[in-house]
Amino acid sequence: MNDDPPEQDISSASHSQRIAIIGAGTIGLSIATFHIPFGNPITIYDTRPNLHEYIQANLPPLLASSSSTTTPHPSSQLPPNLTITTDLASAVQHADIIQESTPEVASLKQSLWARIERLCPPTALLWSSTSGIPASTQSAHLRDPSRLLVVHPYNPPHIMPLLEVVPSPATQPALVRETLRFWREERGRRPVLVRKEVPGFVANRLAFALLREAVHLVAEGVVGVRDVDAVVEASMGPRWAVAGPLRSYAAGGGEKGLKGFFEKIGGTVQECWRDQGRVEMGGEWEKDVFREVQEAYGTFGKEDAEERDSITRGVLEAIRVGRLDAERRREELKVLERVAETEKLD
Amino acid sequence: MNDDPPEQDISSASHSQRIAIIGAGTIGLSIATFHIPFGNPITIYDTRPNLHEYIQANLPPLLASSSSTTTPHPSSQLPPNLTITTDLASAVQHADIIQESTPEVASLKQSLWARIERLCPPTALLWSSTSGIPASTQSAHLRDPSRLLVVHPYNPPHIMPLLEVVPSPATQPALVRETLRFWREERGRRPVLVRKEVPGFVANRLAFALLREAVHLVAEGVVGVRDVDAVVEASMGPRWAVAGPLRSYAAGGGEKGLKGFFEKIGGTVQECWRDQGRVEMGGEWEKDVFREVQEAYGTFGKEDAEERDSITRGVLEAIRVGRLDAERRREELKVLERVAETEKLD
Repeated sequence: MNDDPPEQDISSASHSQRIAIIGAGTIGLSIATFHIPFGNPITIYDTRPNLHEYIQANLPPLLASSSSTTTPHPSSQLPPNLTITTDLASAVQHADIIQESTPEVASLKQSLWARIERLCPPTALLWSSTSGIPASTQSAHLRDPSRLLVVHPYNPPHIMPLLEVVPSPATQPALVRETLRFWREERGRRPVLVRKEVPGFVANRLAFALLREAVHLVAEGVVGVRDVDAVVEASMGPRWAVAGPLRSYAAGGGEKGLKGFFEKIGGTVQECWRDQGRVEMGGEWEKDVFREVQEAYGTFGKEDAEERDSITRGVLEAIRVGRLDAERRREELKVLERVAETEKLD
Repeated sequence: MNDDPPEQDISSASHSQRIAIIGAGTIGLSIATFHIPFGNPITIYDTRPNLHEYIQANLPPLLASSSSTTTPHPSSQLPPNLTITTDLASAVQHADIIQESTPEVASLKQSLWARIERLCPPTALLWSSTSGIPASTQSAHLRDPSRLLVVHPYNPPHIMPLLEVVPSPATQPALVRETLRFWREERGRRPVLVRKEVPGFVANRLAFALLREAVHLVAEGVVGVRDVDAVVEASMGPRWAVAGPLRSYAAGGGEKGLKGFFEKIGGTVQECWRDQGRVEMGGEWEKDVFREVQEAYGTFGKEDAEERDSITRGVLEAIRVGRLDAERRREELKVLERVAETEKLD
């Protein structure tokens, strides 16, 4: 378990790259929040009215919540490395990285990228935060479609480590490599290469497969809403936060790995697969399940989000520290073994 | 997010209940490891040769790893509240709780329970750790099938909080309530009621639904083995450790809850569901995927397990502490609001 990304080290990161955030919605602001402490010049572009007031109201609480203090005291001061603009040209003309987080409408993204391409430096990296519109679609009006790729963060981006990097078949491999390097080495995050443009990319496909079965089991009366969540929170959640499903099940198979796991309980796996629910959107189940979820949790408010994010940061920190500890123990063991070896030779 | 189980408080737990562990395999020993620190008299029954030496060799490292110290120093001393026996009668004759963790063979469990029923007190709780054989099958030879239910732990039980409580249609509701109460109140764990005997219960069904899609995406060349695990470790894992999928997606829907979430991205969800892989056990994919997993991770050894379990304990502790902190902040806010209210009235 020694394939962790390197530590996030703000002091050694490159401060020279200029980052343009296109779209100041939830995702755009969260991405800006993540980059700001690294010191790079950040420009946020959006066309909404009263953009400055809007950012003044919404960014500082995010910035406060991204620090590790448990009781955030948001300042109303905007950070000195941040510029806000409603002029696309001034946002992108000197940018090294352009991350787009505008509404999920293919035609809007297509014309936006065509405008950006005419305004930005020829070397700028063009990244889209889309969760569904592939780069090959977005690049329709680009003169050079090989520049664009999807860099899809997991919500909220200023907290969650995942970035799905999804090139189109036209994207230059060198730009994919540079994108992976940037997130891994300069940001200490976990960028993951998705090799084909499939609907939902990887994270959502996996999550929605489990979600479908969860909805099915609630709709069938097998388990309650709070209980199905409790099952995940008390088993796969913490397990998979530490080691993903293939690694975990390979561990369960002992010396024979994943093959051994399937030899042991393949029958049960097959039975579960055969019995898996195939609920569809818009089906009869929706009304009951929506109501039961509403009754269980009520409305999710700002304080709930703060609480969830604060505990999530604690979980991610526990994993980071746990991996460092394990690394240290492995190093200590190696030293002790070398000492024992030397003593034998003496 | 204030539906946590009460804290695990060893000092206030009932020490009087006598617990018989039937079967000293991986699960049986892990369950014993969990109960031992609570001080209850524990008896482990198994028919394997050299049972005492076997337990002497395998239990102390587990006990050491279940403490919170990061560098376990296993003692070879067995705890004073533990009895080991190869005689079923002496294991169960005074037991209040009997937890069976023998091999997954229905006929063996059926005859074992019939023997246990003749030997144990009429009030003893009869629990099976099975991951697949329902209580209605196991109770075939019982005079009183209403006594038996499944209490399925998540591996490894001395670390993971989940217990799936699965009664048969015949199980007495009072015994189900007492089982849920014991695990929640006396053990500070998260017992979850599964209302119908379905294949795989709930946890495995959910996990295997995601596993199937993970295997499908690797087999289709969309993503590598390490990368599919990295996706889960860096996104859903930590997210769902803190808040399960229904709660998380309801949060994503804003004021409209889960309905709002599906209104926003139901199209993508449906597209992912439509495109979901239907791989089957024994298919062509197995060879390639097994080999790729083997190449990625090699053989999972004792040190890997210790590392995983140690980091998992850190994650669970971070969640526990984070929830306590959040609870404290909510209480503080209430007090401040009351003070403000009083000052207004003055």
